[in-house]
Amino acid sequence: MVIVIIVKKMIINKDNMRRMKGSKDKSKVDKLIKNAKSTLEKNWTGSFTKPSRLMYPHQWSWDAAFISIGYAHFSQKRAENELTRLFKGQWKNGMVPHIVFNKDEEDTDYFPGPDLWQTSGLEQSPNELATSGICQPPIHATAVRHILETVADRARAQAFAADIFPKLKAWHDFLYRERDPENEGLAYIRHPWASGQDNAPTWDKVLEGIDLDYRKVPDYQRKDKDHVDAAERPSDKKYDYYIYLLNFFRKRDYDEEKIREEGCPFMVQDVMFNSILCRAERDMAQIAEWLGENPSPYQQRAWETAYSINDKLWNDNYGFYFDYDLAADAPLEVHTLSGFIPLFANVPSPVRAERLFNYLNTNSFCRLGTEEEDQFMGIPSYDRQEPGFSPQKYWRGPVWINLNWMLYRGLQRYGHKRYDKLIAESIIKMTHKSGFREYYNPDTGEGYGSDNFSWSAALLIDILGSEVEFEVD
Amino acid sequence: MVIVIIVKKMIINKDNMRRMKGSKDKSKVDKLIKNAKSTLEKNWTGSFTKPSRLMYPHQWSWDAAFISIGYAHFSQKRAENELTRLFKGQWKNGMVPHIVFNKDEEDTDYFPGPDLWQTSGLEQSPNELATSGICQPPIHATAVRHILETVADRARAQAFAADIFPKLKAWHDFLYRERDPENEGLAYIRHPWASGQDNAPTWDKVLEGIDLDYRKVPDYQRKDKDHVDAAERPSDKKYDYYIYLLNFFRKRDYDEEKIREEGCPFMVQDVMFNSILCRAERDMAQIAEWLGENPSPYQQRAWETAYSINDKLWNDNYGFYFDYDLAADAPLEVHTLSGFIPLFANVPSPVRAERLFNYLNTNSFCRLGTEEEDQFMGIPSYDRQEPGFSPQKYWRGPVWINLNWMLYRGLQRYGHKRYDKLIAESIIKMTHKSGFREYYNPDTGEGYGSDNFSWSAALLIDILGSEVEFEVD
Repeated sequence: MVIVIIVKKMIINKDNMRRMKGSKDKSKVDKLIKNAKSTLEKNWTGSFTKPSRLMYPHQWSWDAAFISIGYAHFSQKRAENELTRLFKGQWKNGMVPHIVFNKDEEDTDYFPGPDLWQTSGLEQSPNELATSGICQPPIHATAVRHILETVADRARAQAFAADIFPKLKAWHDFLYRERDPENEGLAYIRHPWASGQDNAPTWDKVLEGIDLDYRKVPDYQRKDKDHVDAAERPSDKKYDYYIYLLNFFRKRDYDEEKIREEGCPFMVQDVMFNSILCRAERDMAQIAEWLGENPSPYQQRAWETAYSINDKLWNDNYGFYFDYDLAADAPLEVHTLSGFIPLFANVPSPVRAERLFNYLNTNSFCRLGTEEEDQFMGIPSYDRQEPGFSPQKYWRGPVWINLNWMLYRGLQRYGHKRYDKLIAESIIKMTHKSGFREYYNPDTGEGYGSDNFSWSAALLIDILGSEVEFEVD
Repeated sequence: MVIVIIVKKMIINKDNMRRMKGSKDKSKVDKLIKNAKSTLEKNWTGSFTKPSRLMYPHQWSWDAAFISIGYAHFSQKRAENELTRLFKGQWKNGMVPHIVFNKDEEDTDYFPGPDLWQTSGLEQSPNELATSGICQPPIHATAVRHILETVADRARAQAFAADIFPKLKAWHDFLYRERDPENEGLAYIRHPWASGQDNAPTWDKVLEGIDLDYRKVPDYQRKDKDHVDAAERPSDKKYDYYIYLLNFFRKRDYDEEKIREEGCPFMVQDVMFNSILCRAERDMAQIAEWLGENPSPYQQRAWETAYSINDKLWNDNYGFYFDYDLAADAPLEVHTLSGFIPLFANVPSPVRAERLFNYLNTNSFCRLGTEEEDQFMGIPSYDRQEPGFSPQKYWRGPVWINLNWMLYRGLQRYGHKRYDKLIAESIIKMTHKSGFREYYNPDTGEGYGSDNFSWSAALLIDILGSEVEFEVD
C-alpha cells in the first residue's frame, strides 16, 4: 500500500495533494474531455473541422494542425483527414494558404471571402478549392510526427505520412525558396495575419509606416464584429491596412517575386513563424528517417534557421528574440510571447534559455512562488508591463492556448519542471472555468472571442492525453 | 476546489487514485530520494563515485554516465565531476576505457586489476591513470545533454559542455574509425564486458565457438564471488573465455588494427551499444548547435547508424533487432532486452516500434491488463520463455534498472503512455522494497548482486526528478 502511494507521488503537485479526495473526481476529468470532444464534433462539417461554428466557418491552416494534434488521441481518421483536407488547398508553388474555403459556406458572412481574395484561376492557385493568398505558421509536419507517435494504427499512420510527406516538403521548399531571398534560413511573412497573431502590437509600427493610399483600399465591410464584442477585436483602421496589403498582392496575381520586388511594405522575419518552421524541419528529418529517406536536407535547413534566429533575431541586451522588419531593415523590439517560442524548437542554448526563463518568471508574465502564481491563468500574449497591454483585446494581452501549449512543450525540453506544469494546469483551469474559448483573460480566466473554439479543445485533449481513451474508427 | 482536483488528475494513475490519502505520503518519497542520495554519498571517493563500495571500487564508464544523470537533479558539481574524472582515463586514440582504476584501491581485491590488463606505458594509453583495455556503451554525450537541460547554473554547464565536447567527439571518432572497418555505421565490440551485459545469453554461442587454447589463458583468481552468491554470477568457464580474450588484446598491445587483422574471435555489432551510440550522436548534434558548431557531422553519423541498425540488425520474421557476429558473419538470434533499446534512439519506424511493443506486451516480458501487470516488478533482461532464463542470474533474466530506464525513455517518445508509466512505477517499487541493488528478481522484486548500487539510486532520482530539490554547490 505504501509503495503504491509513493508511486503516485512521483508525478503529483505536492502542494495540492492534500486536497485530493478520491475516485469521484475522475468523472470531472472525463467530463472535461467529453466537452472537448463534443466541441470538435460540433465544428465538424463532414469534410473538416471549423475553428468555430459561426465566426470561422472555413478551414484555417495552423488551426487544422492543432486540431489534428488533439484528434490523434482518440480519432486517427479525423486527425489524418484534417491535414489531408487542408493540403487539397495547397498551391502549385507549395504554399499552404491560411484559409481553404468551405464551398457550402462561401455565401455566408465570413470576411474577407473568396470574392475579395480572388485567387481562383491563377497559375499557382489550386483548381478545386478557393483559398486565401497568404499563409500561416508551418506547424503541419510537427502534427504529422505527433500522429505517428500517438495513434493506434501505426501502419496506417505511416502510409498517411508517406502520402503527405512530399506535400510537406513542397510547403517548406516554398518558404525557403520564395520567402528567403538572401538565403538567411529565415522566411518572411508579408501580412500580419500570416503570423497567426493578427493584431499583435509588433505590427503597429510596421503598419503605421505604410503610406496608405486610400484609393488603393477596396471597399469592404468587416463582419467579425457581428459575432463578438468590438472591444475584443482589431480596430477598423487596422483593417484598412490589412485590406490594402491584400489588394497589393491581388494586383500582382500573388506572384511572390513581383510582390517582393515591387516594394511590398510588409515583409517581416517573425520569431514564432521561423521557430515553428525550425521545429517542423527537425520533425521532417525524423519522419524522413522513419520512411527510409535521407534526413540531411531537413536537418541542414533546421540548423540554418536555428542559427539565424540566434544570430539575427536575438537581442543580447534584452535577452530576448525580436522580429525583424525587412522592409525597414530594422528589428521590431516588441515584447510579445512570440519571443519565447524558440524554446519550442530547441533553438536557444541553455544559457539563452535561462535568460528567457528569467524574463518569463517576472511580473511581466508570472513569477513563481508569489500570490500571482496561485491565481495564475496562463501566460499573456504580451508583456503586462508594456504600453497598450490589454487583458481582453485579441493578440494584445489575452492568453491563447496554442501559444501556451508551445511554451509548455518548450519548457519541458529545457527541464523547467515547475513552470511547465503551471502552464498545463492553467489550460485545464481556464477551459474548465470558461469553456473552450478563443482567448482568455490572464487575470480572471474569463473567455473571449468565439466560443466552442476548436484548438482550445484539441490542445486540452493533448495535455490530458494519458487520460483519453482511443476510439476505433 | 473542483478545478484543483481536476488539475491533479491529469497525471495520476487513475486506478490507484482512491488509495491516495494525503500529504503524509510525501515523506515516503522524500525518504526514498534521501536514501538514493545517501547511497551515492557512501560510494563517493573524493574524486568519483564508485558503482558500489565493496564490489566495484573503481570508476566504470557507463556507470559514470548514469550516475551523472542522477546527480544533475541535485548536485551540478558532482554531475560534471563524474564525467570529467572518467575522461581523464581517455586513451590517446579516443577510447574511453570501461574501467578507470582508483589508485587508492589498486591493491584491493578487484579482479581483473591493472596488473592483468597491463595497459600502462602503451603508446595509446593515458599517462596518469591505469585503465582497462576495452570500452563500454557510449552514453556520455547523452548525459552531458541531460546536464545542460537539468542543472541550476546553465552558464557553468555550458562551459563544462564546451570543455568536454572535443573529448566526446574523439570518443565517437574512435568508434567510427577503429571499430567500423567496412564503414557500415555500426561499431563492433570485442569483449562481452564491452556490451555492459557481461554474461548475456547472446555471447554463449560466440564464446563456445572459440577454440580455447588453455595455454593462452593466464593464471587468474576471480574475486567477485567473495562478495555475492556464486549463483548470481557468471560461471568459471565463462571467466576463462573473458581472460583469454583479454590476453589476446594484451599480447597485441591493444592495437586495434592488429586485434582485428589477427583474427580476434569476438567481434560483435551489438544492438544496444549501437543504439546508444546513435542516440549519443543525436545528442552531440544538439550540443554542437548550442555551442555554435556545425551539427551536421553528428547528424550524418547518427543517421548512418540508425539506417544500418534497421538494415542489418532487424529481423523481419521475428520483428526484433539482433546482434551480429562479425567473426562468424552471422546474426545472433537471442531474445534479450537489448533488442528493444533502438526505441531509446528513435531508430525504429512507428510500424517497427509497434511490432517491438507487441512483443514486449506478452508473457515473455509483461502483458498489460493481466494479473502479471499487477505484480509487475520490471522488465527482465531476457525473454522469460527462452532457454536458460533465470530470474536471479546476472544478465540472464534479472531486472536491471539502467535498461528499464532506457526503455522507459524510449517508450515515452513513441507514445506508449501506459507501459512507460508501468516501468517507471516498477523502478520505484523495486527500490522501495529492496533498496538500491545491482539487479532484481522480475517476479518478486528481491534484490541481488551488490547492494548500495549507484546507478540504481541515480536513475531512481531521475525518475523522481520533479520531486528533487536542487542543492547549491
